[in-house]
Amino acid sequence: MTQTSPRVAILAEGLFAHETAKTAIGALRYAPYPVVCVIDSTRAPSDAAEHVGTGAGVPVVATLAEALEREPTVLLIGTASAGGRLPDAYRPILAEALSRGLEVWNGLHERVLADPALAAAAARGGGPVWELREPPADLPVGGNRRPREGAKVVLTVGTDAAVGKMTVALEIVAALRRAGERVAFVATGQTGIAIAGSGIAVDAVVADFIAGAAERMVCDAAEEADWVIVEGQGSLMHPGFSGVTLGLLHGSAPHAMVLCHDTMRHTVKGNEFGLPLRAVEECVGIYEAAATWRHSPGHPPARVVAIALNTSRTSEELARASLADAAHRSGLPAADPVREGAHGADRLAAAILAVAGASR
Amino acid sequence: MTQTSPRVAILAEGLFAHETAKTAIGALRYAPYPVVCVIDSTRAPSDAAEHVGTGAGVPVVATLAEALEREPTVLLIGTASAGGRLPDAYRPILAEALSRGLEVWNGLHERVLADPALAAAAARGGGPVWELREPPADLPVGGNRRPREGAKVVLTVGTDAAVGKMTVALEIVAALRRAGERVAFVATGQTGIAIAGSGIAVDAVVADFIAGAAERMVCDAAEEADWVIVEGQGSLMHPGFSGVTLGLLHGSAPHAMVLCHDTMRHTVKGNEFGLPLRAVEECVGIYEAAATWRHSPGHPPARVVAIALNTSRTSEELARASLADAAHRSGLPAADPVREGAHGADRLAAAILAVAGASR
Repeated sequence: MTQTSPRVAILAEGLFAHETAKTAIGALRYAPYPVVCVIDSTRAPSDAAEHVGTGAGVPVVATLAEALEREPTVLLIGTASAGGRLPDAYRPILAEALSRGLEVWNGLHERVLADPALAAAAARGGGPVWELREPPADLPVGGNRRPREGAKVVLTVGTDAAVGKMTVALEIVAALRRAGERVAFVATGQTGIAIAGSGIAVDAVVADFIAGAAERMVCDAAEEADWVIVEGQGSLMHPGFSGVTLGLLHGSAPHAMVLCHDTMRHTVKGNEFGLPLRAVEECVGIYEAAATWRHSPGHPPARVVAIALNTSRTSEELARASLADAAHRSGLPAADPVREGAHGADRLAAAILAVAGASR
Repeated sequence: MTQTSPRVAILAEGLFAHETAKTAIGALRYAPYPVVCVIDSTRAPSDAAEHVGTGAGVPVVATLAEALEREPTVLLIGTASAGGRLPDAYRPILAEALSRGLEVWNGLHERVLADPALAAAAARGGGPVWELREPPADLPVGGNRRPREGAKVVLTVGTDAAVGKMTVALEIVAALRRAGERVAFVATGQTGIAIAGSGIAVDAVVADFIAGAAERMVCDAAEEADWVIVEGQGSLMHPGFSGVTLGLLHGSAPHAMVLCHDTMRHTVKGNEFGLPLRAVEECVGIYEAAATWRHSPGHPPARVVAIALNTSRTSEELARASLADAAHRSGLPAADPVREGAHGADRLAAAILAVAGASR
């Protein structure tokens, strides 16, 4: 991040409230800096909360000109489709922003300055670009470091991709802070990085260094915190992303995991064969088994200690039934830290704090 | 590959016969083109086979000047250390080669032309560089394609990294050809690519595309072959490389696996904590479990159908005992396709052919 107090406009032209608007929603909900507006001409004028249930008071505007009236210093690309190309509808808006000297934050695989028209606009207007997914050049192979003795590492894992692992991690961070603990958040994806101001997008590193990137971030964070909460990625059962997930699991080497699930997700995200999701309790077993593979026999294995449900697309009644069902099936505490607010997140935090109690 | 019939000199200065000389050994044993010499001043003059047990008749020479007397058209970097940097001892030799117009094949993560001195030498002498690990620019996310109906995919997997998965795959290819089958080899690492002349180094792609790269290669190969033999990478139990291994497993979606093990390997390669390897039969269970994660419940799960042992560092007596022990523990055929030659490889091929018989 090149600025200490950015004012951020979010670009989501034609795609705000679409399922790919994860970065927009994350920033609206968790960013420590002001979000001045969202740009999407297909939904303007309106209030962001009407579309995504968060960001009340943040206007949706139709054009960059309207956005500029709110004096942003940054234009954040707010959507992320599988494959990671810049949508064509974004390019003229990005060009205009860069030519006016606005900073652009991009979390897509495609680099902004790889488009000659955008590079020319940036050269013309001096608009800098922060590529959120650009990995450091000097990553190590993982497996050869351990975090500071006494620090505990928690990884959010999922029954599928895009079920809320970053959200759950951030809610756990907040809950542990409320409990008076020293906590660090490790961002591993573009949205988390845009919120936290640092991190490494582990899905964007050269594959040999997935675990090494995770290990470095965890060991660094553990120097200053007793709890390191790592944002999970993908799913061990997602055929496109499972490699990233396992590398992150083995590289971060958590003491505990929190399994995240979207109660309305029934098939693997983006899979054209309609691959069914596994049951929550089966996923618990899969993650716990995979975690043991990197450990020596004497090492205490990492357990899934709680289930975090995303019930945002269900009724209150069904949400309660889903929470009871998940707790019953898994034998673990279950909470929706967004629907239930601090009450839910505190339940997850209590399950995590019990891990340290057990090993003290 | 930019040439149809290259003449290859292998660069292994100071490192020939070192455990990182995998590419040199692979090319000496399997390359379809002539290898004219190996460069390593610390072992010259001698015969390659004295050091690595293969390549009889290929001289080890001390200098590039001596190598040039044998009229190579290509200088292949013959070693690969974890982390993938160019050894400093190689740089002056590479500079000299490039300035004389020799083509360089490089399988390391570090790119030859990223070194300004080497880039200048290449510009001066016109020596082209083939970066074996440079991935294609347009890789897809995996999980959405299936190979041609009727084609069978076999993946070699390992109890650890660098136990012989490429060697076993190439020996299986040869054995199936002897049996009259239409076979394709899918190279997934730099040595396999240097031998096959094509392929994608899955450890060098952006992490999100590991599975997509594997899937594309397998689907393409299945158009022309009934058997697609995929070179495995890393190990699910290696904390540094497990992500690549799982991505390759889920992306290639094999019908059968062959588990490779080095009988003298007892701890995870390169691991500073001395992490012990799992028993062969435990590894069989781990790979079979991981393979099921991407499959829908009705899909026949991929099984490990044979054990391939690398007994190159043991006596004949211990090799025989190890083969009997592995077969007994796993309940599967076991063979060392190098020590036993065609006889061993044919046993692995028979176990693989039985898979097709079972599903026909």
